[in-house]
Amino acid sequence: MFNPFFKNHGPIKISEIAGSINLKIDTSNPDFEIQDIKDLQSSTNEDITFFHSKKYKEMAKKTNATFCITTDSLQNELPNNCKPLVVENVLVSTSKITSMFYPEAVNDDFDVTVMPINDIQFKDKVSYGKNILIGKNVSIGSNCKIGHNTIIEKNVVIGDNCSIGSNTIIRNSIIKNSVKILDNCVIGKHGFGFFPKNNQNLRYPHIGIVLIEQNCEIGCGSTIDRGSMSNTVIGKNTYLDNQIHIAHNVRIGENTIIAGQVGIAGSSIIGNNVKIGGQAGISGHLKIGNNVEIGGGSGVIRDIPNNTKVMGYPAKNIRDFLRENK
Amino acid sequence: MFNPFFKNHGPIKISEIAGSINLKIDTSNPDFEIQDIKDLQSSTNEDITFFHSKKYKEMAKKTNATFCITTDSLQNELPNNCKPLVVENVLVSTSKITSMFYPEAVNDDFDVTVMPINDIQFKDKVSYGKNILIGKNVSIGSNCKIGHNTIIEKNVVIGDNCSIGSNTIIRNSIIKNSVKILDNCVIGKHGFGFFPKNNQNLRYPHIGIVLIEQNCEIGCGSTIDRGSMSNTVIGKNTYLDNQIHIAHNVRIGENTIIAGQVGIAGSSIIGNNVKIGGQAGISGHLKIGNNVEIGGGSGVIRDIPNNTKVMGYPAKNIRDFLRENK
Amino acid sequence: MFNPFFKNHGPIKISEIAGSINLKIDTSNPDFEIQDIKDLQSSTNEDITFFHSKKYKEMAKKTNATFCITTDSLQNELPNNCKPLVVENVLVSTSKITSMFYPEAVNDDFDVTVMPINDIQFKDKVSYGKNILIGKNVSIGSNCKIGHNTIIEKNVVIGDNCSIGSNTIIRNSIIKNSVKILDNCVIGKHGFGFFPKNNQNLRYPHIGIVLIEQNCEIGCGSTIDRGSMSNTVIGKNTYLDNQIHIAHNVRIGENTIIAGQVGIAGSSIIGNNVKIGGQAGISGHLKIGNNVEIGGGSGVIRDIPNNTKVMGYPAKNIRDFLRENK
Repeated sequence: MFNPFFKNHGPIKISEIAGSINLKIDTSNPDFEIQDIKDLQSSTNEDITFFHSKKYKEMAKKTNATFCITTDSLQNELPNNCKPLVVENVLVSTSKITSMFYPEAVNDDFDVTVMPINDIQFKDKVSYGKNILIGKNVSIGSNCKIGHNTIIEKNVVIGDNCSIGSNTIIRNSIIKNSVKILDNCVIGKHGFGFFPKNNQNLRYPHIGIVLIEQNCEIGCGSTIDRGSMSNTVIGKNTYLDNQIHIAHNVRIGENTIIAGQVGIAGSSIIGNNVKIGGQAGISGHLKIGNNVEIGGGSGVIRDIPNNTKVMGYPAKNIRDFLRENK
Repeated sequence: MFNPFFKNHGPIKISEIAGSINLKIDTSNPDFEIQDIKDLQSSTNEDITFFHSKKYKEMAKKTNATFCITTDSLQNELPNNCKPLVVENVLVSTSKITSMFYPEAVNDDFDVTVMPINDIQFKDKVSYGKNILIGKNVSIGSNCKIGHNTIIEKNVVIGDNCSIGSNTIIRNSIIKNSVKILDNCVIGKHGFGFFPKNNQNLRYPHIGIVLIEQNCEIGCGSTIDRGSMSNTVIGKNTYLDNQIHIAHNVRIGENTIIAGQVGIAGSSIIGNNVKIGGQAGISGHLKIGNNVEIGGGSGVIRDIPNNTKVMGYPAKNIRDFLRENK
Repeated sequence: MFNPFFKNHGPIKISEIAGSINLKIDTSNPDFEIQDIKDLQSSTNEDITFFHSKKYKEMAKKTNATFCITTDSLQNELPNNCKPLVVENVLVSTSKITSMFYPEAVNDDFDVTVMPINDIQFKDKVSYGKNILIGKNVSIGSNCKIGHNTIIEKNVVIGDNCSIGSNTIIRNSIIKNSVKILDNCVIGKHGFGFFPKNNQNLRYPHIGIVLIEQNCEIGCGSTIDRGSMSNTVIGKNTYLDNQIHIAHNVRIGENTIIAGQVGIAGSSIIGNNVKIGGQAGISGHLKIGNNVEIGGGSGVIRDIPNNTKVMGYPAKNIRDFLRENK
């Protein structure tokens, strides 16, 4: 994945990687240089990968990675070219190693590169307000408007004909043409993803971005978190009302309408032409089909097939809900 | 309606208006000048009006408008003085024509007229923080306080003894005496109203305002959207807690108390002396009576008569809710 | 309680105090100076106290206060050393008198003492963004980061290794080491506490603070209100996601995880190692035990014992909820 936002700090020697998770690695070449950490399928023979569930056995058998973080019971599924690093908790160790390659993706400290907009290049193609801060390498298209006190952090890409409100913060995001983002939004911060640990939780990196497709509108006070390994995506011509929270890795389709104060938990997928009423909540890792209508206040805790209308908590067929609650 | 916020760009020739919705108009005077677009009742013989539902038949019969956007089946209800413009979708065509008269009411781009407060007239009667931006023709009463980084856009009227927090944005609003608006609010943006259309939704203008009566308090992070054709109103001495969303055209009575994270959908009317518990949601176009109590977390989907206590989702009599859920 | 945030304006003469609530006090020494207003237990013989419910009878019998605001029916429980001031509504009168001692705790007007950070002492130990405002007597530890447009009001204490986001406002708060507070938060405003009164509600002072223990994280757009008489506390290593509202006097334990858009009403106590799913709401004055799990969207209206999993509205045992809603 091309990712202008998080610099890969590799290569890192395999001995250093193993040391970071308190392993001694039995290899003839402790100075072997690892370029990156990737999933089982996309790894090359210069990468390290991870394998934490039997579900991925078939992919594991064919991985090209030279090293793999895995468990005692899974290690025998790996091919001869791939040396196992056996750990107790694959995801925790993977998180630590990903943090070595992408240390800037763990925390969201403020962008030190920003400068007042009138000092730099956009001043002639953008209509802009007061006190705007723009980070290094930001790209903004033609005919855009940017409101007062707004912060656009480094490497963000904004298309043509966009209107960004006031007091809004955008980081780690690609915004396509004709998008409106209203006031007081925070777009692109890391997700609420970490490993719980007494006294000090362990944050893992979020190297995904937020991608907002063309003609979208994002209401005031909304937050859209960037993905951890994949992206958070808002599809074409999808409109979000005020005070909406979209968690990391969520993917929303096209022409979808989401009313105020809705929350969508991590990694859920929402189809095209979906209508979601105010204050509805959607649990994580669900799949909501196309042309679905979800009544206001609903709590969705199961997948919803295409062309379905639901309401309630938990959400059920809307006719059943209304009949049972006359 | 006196409205200092949205300039009427009329008069506009009737031939130009008809052309904008792809109609050829059969009239002896294509240059006839239309002053404004109004509802059936308030139109004069220099205005255009619209008629989209049989419900308004009696009003239609008496309209003084010279032209009326309507459907094939409704056109015969109009009086002789009023010429029909027959269209497929009255509301979409009305929206397009309203946008011709009030183009600034469609989008909420940042206010280009704002200036730092210390450059202008309020500096002696207002106690103010740093980095405050004030638009053209803003009026602020005596003994007001305005916090840091706050933006008050053009034509906003603020009464005496008001306290506005920091990082707050106010536009298209009239704020009466002794109102407190806390930090990070957005007051007066357009509502979440548009005609859904694949690839590019059609926004309609919001020419209503937000009117906040005296002694109100609005909590941090709240959003109050302005109305489309009528106003959004918060009645005297009504208190809103943090993170509340009030949608367009909502009217709230006096002495009402609304706890945190409540959402009220478009065009609902809330009475006097109402208490609404935290996170409750109220659907659009409902009427909530006086002295109503709505329990926290409730989802209100039907009108509620005066002097009633409700709770649940959907909200019902609170005694029934508690008995059924012991 | 040591409280650097609200200055006690005492001593105040007892005749002046009595006059403020329209009482004439029958005392040989109308000039007797009252130092402070405190609860029954902690008052000294230079303080005034209040006694409004039989529940506190045993404490009242032993109070050292010289004066006590109470009712006609409770006054006989007071010891001889303590003179009753008999009123109709003890809490309203107590509120008025507390406001005399702590007038700055009633309203949250903006902090007039703030100055741009680069003018003052932290510039060498803090990494900071643009347009930051810092109040008088603010203390910030080593190795902190503070984002753009953020406002830290007077007397706030921030520990070492903290990261504060952009557009955030912190007042009346003590932040321990290694805390992260993300963007657009408002920490430490007064709670939503007042006596309802037609035409003009009566606000009471909030002299409590917000205390955030070490290693906490507070998500974007969250609001944490300070306490009225006691503090609002977020325990060690507790993580809050985006758009969360924590009301006044709430106390949350350690290692607790709270997902997006959750709201916790005033004075509730949440234990250690609690997990709260997105959009859940917790009513006021409840006690949630340790190791409790609350499903997303739940509405909690009763206490929850330790080691319990609940879901639903109202929240019940999660297995019952899921079985009844298959």
